Amino acid sequence: MHFTSEQRLDDGVLEREFTLGDIPGILWTPPSAPASAPASAPVPLILLGHPGGLDRMRPRLAARARHSAAEGFASATVELPGSGARPRLPAVEQARADLRRAVEAGEPVSDDIVDRLVLPLVDKAVPEWRAALDALLALPGIDGPVGYSGGVISVGVRLAVVEPRISAAALFAGSYVPRVMFEEARRVTVPLHVLLQWDDEGNDRQAALDLFDAFGSEEKALNANMGGHTGVPQHAGEAAARFFTRHLKS
Amino acid sequence: MHFTSEQRLDDGVLEREFTLGDIPGILWTPPSAPASAPASAPVPLILLGHPGGLDRMRPRLAARARHSAAEGFASATVELPGSGARPRLPAVEQARADLRRAVEAGEPVSDDIVDRLVLPLVDKAVPEWRAALDALLALPGIDGPVGYSGGVISVGVRLAVVEPRISAAALFAGSYVPRVMFEEARRVTVPLHVLLQWDDEGNDRQAALDLFDAFGSEEKALNANMGGHTGVPQHAGEAAARFFTRHLKS
Repeated sequence: MHFTSEQRLDDGVLEREFTLGDIPGILWTPPSAPASAPASAPVPLILLGHPGGLDRMRPRLAARARHSAAEGFASATVELPGSGARPRLPAVEQARADLRRAVEAGEPVSDDIVDRLVLPLVDKAVPEWRAALDALLALPGIDGPVGYSGGVISVGVRLAVVEPRISAAALFAGSYVPRVMFEEARRVTVPLHVLLQWDDEGNDRQAALDLFDAFGSEEKALNANMGGHTGVPQHAGEAAARFFTRHLKS
Repeated sequence: MHFTSEQRLDDGVLEREFTLGDIPGILWTPPSAPASAPASAPVPLILLGHPGGLDRMRPRLAARARHSAAEGFASATVELPGSGARPRLPAVEQARADLRRAVEAGEPVSDDIVDRLVLPLVDKAVPEWRAALDALLALPGIDGPVGYSGGVISVGVRLAVVEPRISAAALFAGSYVPRVMFEEARRVTVPLHVLLQWDDEGNDRQAALDLFDAFGSEEKALNANMGGHTGVPQHAGEAAARFFTRHLKS
């Protein structure tokens, strides 16, 4: 992990860009735990998921990270495979084109398209997030427990299954879910907070409800609100933040 | 409205029993707004719904009222028709017996049973809650806006439709819903916070989701948690309280 830039934001949050091999990422740490003051108590970490395209997502990710920093969390994210400045994944691009064609033609989106769109991403992204976790937890001032928040829900599901350092996850039910992920969902046991936008035009509401039902976690909450994909109300974001405070700071 | 008893609880909340005609009720007011200090700013009111049987429900209702009092709300409740010390409603009792029989026989609960169980209660209870509201808002120290919280969801739906003084409602999806109430739900426009216990043994989850979908309110949130009918987690109660603070105290 190499830091490539560093800036102190107006609220004192330290924002650092890094690369992990070829993968760009961003780390935000609260004012009370800068790397220059390793004597202060380490803070828990939230991994910020997103749909890909760090530059485009950056304002929203930074806003979430600054909110979490105020609650005493570090936040970090890495670019998804095939997105932003990273090399395209031709098979995923093809699946995305097929998806677009199906939606524009008013046809149902086939399981095959969803599998080809999402599964390669999950298979490639999850080991990268785990490698990022190794590097992040080795930094002074950052420690477990770790939360995963938002992003492509299948990535969050797989990560929650395979990565024992994830202690809680706030998942955003807003993307197509391959059938095989419903089986994986049964193996998730960490506390879950699932956000669903009830009228999300690009999301299958019934599939989201079925996925919520499938999760094996003893503690899981579904928080559904009105509006489309990007219309998550502020109070829902605050409820997700309280979920992490409850589970990562006790 | 006649006050029949009064006690100051250890947190300073004033708890007063009253009767409204033949209907028993309880009013809780926060320490800062006792009737003896009418000069203080009036506080908003939350009507506490419940499934009937004030004596049995009292500990839980008092806990909710004390929590709300700490946030600056008065809370009040009245006994439901046919419950507690009030005269039975023979037709409703018959429907309840039919329901029990159907459930014990493992048969589906018919629309007819649900209609006979719930609709007479709604028809009788809603005018009583409105009369209670008249009396409560005439008291010094209590003012609008008014919220309705919990209880038989069909009572809350009807009240939200017909009573313009209700500004927000936190409804508990935990009872059978007559089909006609889905039509009424479309006419609800106030902000809604709907609690659903995902594994509520006596509740039809799909009907609850359909009812949530039917509500006409522009702002509505579904907050579903694990566990049975009485297992609402503490954080879900706190989220409902924040909902009222957001909508009744701005």
